Amino acid sequence: MTYADRKSVIIDACLAVIARDGVTGVSHRKVAEEAGVPLGSMTYHFTGMDDLLHQAFERFAERASGPLESALAEAEGTDSVIAAIAGVIMSGIRDDAGDLVLNHELYTIAARRPEFRDITEQWMQRSRTALERHLPPDLARDVDAYIEGLTLHGALAPNHPSMSQVVHSLQRIIQDPHHK
Amino acid sequence: MTYADRKSVIIDACLAVIARDGVTGVSHRKVAEEAGVPLGSMTYHFTGMDDLLHQAFERFAERASGPLESALAEAEGTDSVIAAIAGVIMSGIRDDAGDLVLNHELYTIAARRPEFRDITEQWMQRSRTALERHLPPDLARDVDAYIEGLTLHGALAPNHPSMSQVVHSLQRIIQDPHHK
Repeated sequence: MTYADRKSVIIDACLAVIARDGVTGVSHRKVAEEAGVPLGSMTYHFTGMDDLLHQAFERFAERASGPLESALAEAEGTDSVIAAIAGVIMSGIRDDAGDLVLNHELYTIAARRPEFRDITEQWMQRSRTALERHLPPDLARDVDAYIEGLTLHGALAPNHPSMSQVVHSLQRIIQDPHHK
Repeated sequence: MTYADRKSVIIDACLAVIARDGVTGVSHRKVAEEAGVPLGSMTYHFTGMDDLLHQAFERFAERASGPLESALAEAEGTDSVIAAIAGVIMSGIRDDAGDLVLNHELYTIAARRPEFRDITEQWMQRSRTALERHLPPDLARDVDAYIEGLTLHGALAPNHPSMSQVVHSLQRIIQDPHHK
C-alpha cells in the first residue's frame, strides 16, 4: 500500500469504529486492528487522536453532502427541485447509506467541542451552495435547516413519512411562483 | 435521603456524567461517585446500565420539552405563537440550559439503539401536542421538524442568527391568515 492508501484505510477504519463504539470508544489500538495496520503506523500518519477524528469526520461530511449536491445539480424548475430534495430526505430517513449514527456522532462531538464545528459549518455551507443554484440565499439557509429537521424526525419516528408527505412538507416553504 | 430522593440524585448524576464523558463513557462507578452514593446502591435502584440510561434520558427529555410547552400555553394569535417559538429556538441556540450536548447524546443513542426511541418519540409527541393548540396537526408536525433544524443549525453555526431572522424563518411556514 502507498502512504496515501494506508492513511485512507485508517480513516475509513476509524469511521467504522465510531459507528460501532462511538467517539468516546475509539482508541488507536481498535482503529489499527480494524484497518489491519501496525499500531505504530497510527502515530506516523496522524498527530494524535483529535487529528484522526477530525480527518475521519471530514471525510464523512464530504461523502454525506454528495447526494444533495448531485440531486440538485440535475434539477430544474420548482417541482423538480422539491422532488430532488424529497428524494434525499427519504434516503436519509431510510438511512440507505448507514450514516444516521455517524451523523449524530459528528453533531455530538461538534456540540461538545467547538474545534470540530468547522466540519459541520463546511457541510452546511456546501448544502446551502447547492440549494442556492435554485433558491435565494436566505431561503436556501432555511430550507437546509428544514431538511435537517425533517430527516432527523423522520428517521427517529416509529412510522416513517411517505415521499408525498415529504413533498407536501417542502411545498410549505418552497413554492412554485406560477402557483402562487 | 428517602428511596425516591436517592434514586433521583443518581439519575441527575448520570446526566452529568453523560454530558461530561458521553454515553459510552458512563459507568456505575462514575455515576455513584458523582452522586455521592455507595456503588452498591446502583444495582438496588436500577436493573442495569440500560435502565439507568433510559430513566436519565427520560428525565432530560421531559425537562427539555418544558419551555416550548409553557411558551405556547401563554401564546395567543399567530404573531404571538411565532414569537413564543422563536424565543424557544433562540434559547436552544444559545444553549441557555446547557442541554446541547445531552440533546445530541440522546439522538445518538436513539439512532444506534431503537429501544431508546420511545423517549424521542414521546418528546416529539409532547411538542406536537403543544403546537396543536395553535396549528393543524400536519403543520404542527412540520413546524416541530423545522424548530429542530433551526435550533441545531443555529447552535452549530459560527454566527448565531438574530431573533428577527428566526421570526422571519418561522413566518415562511406559519402565516397569519389575515396577512395572506
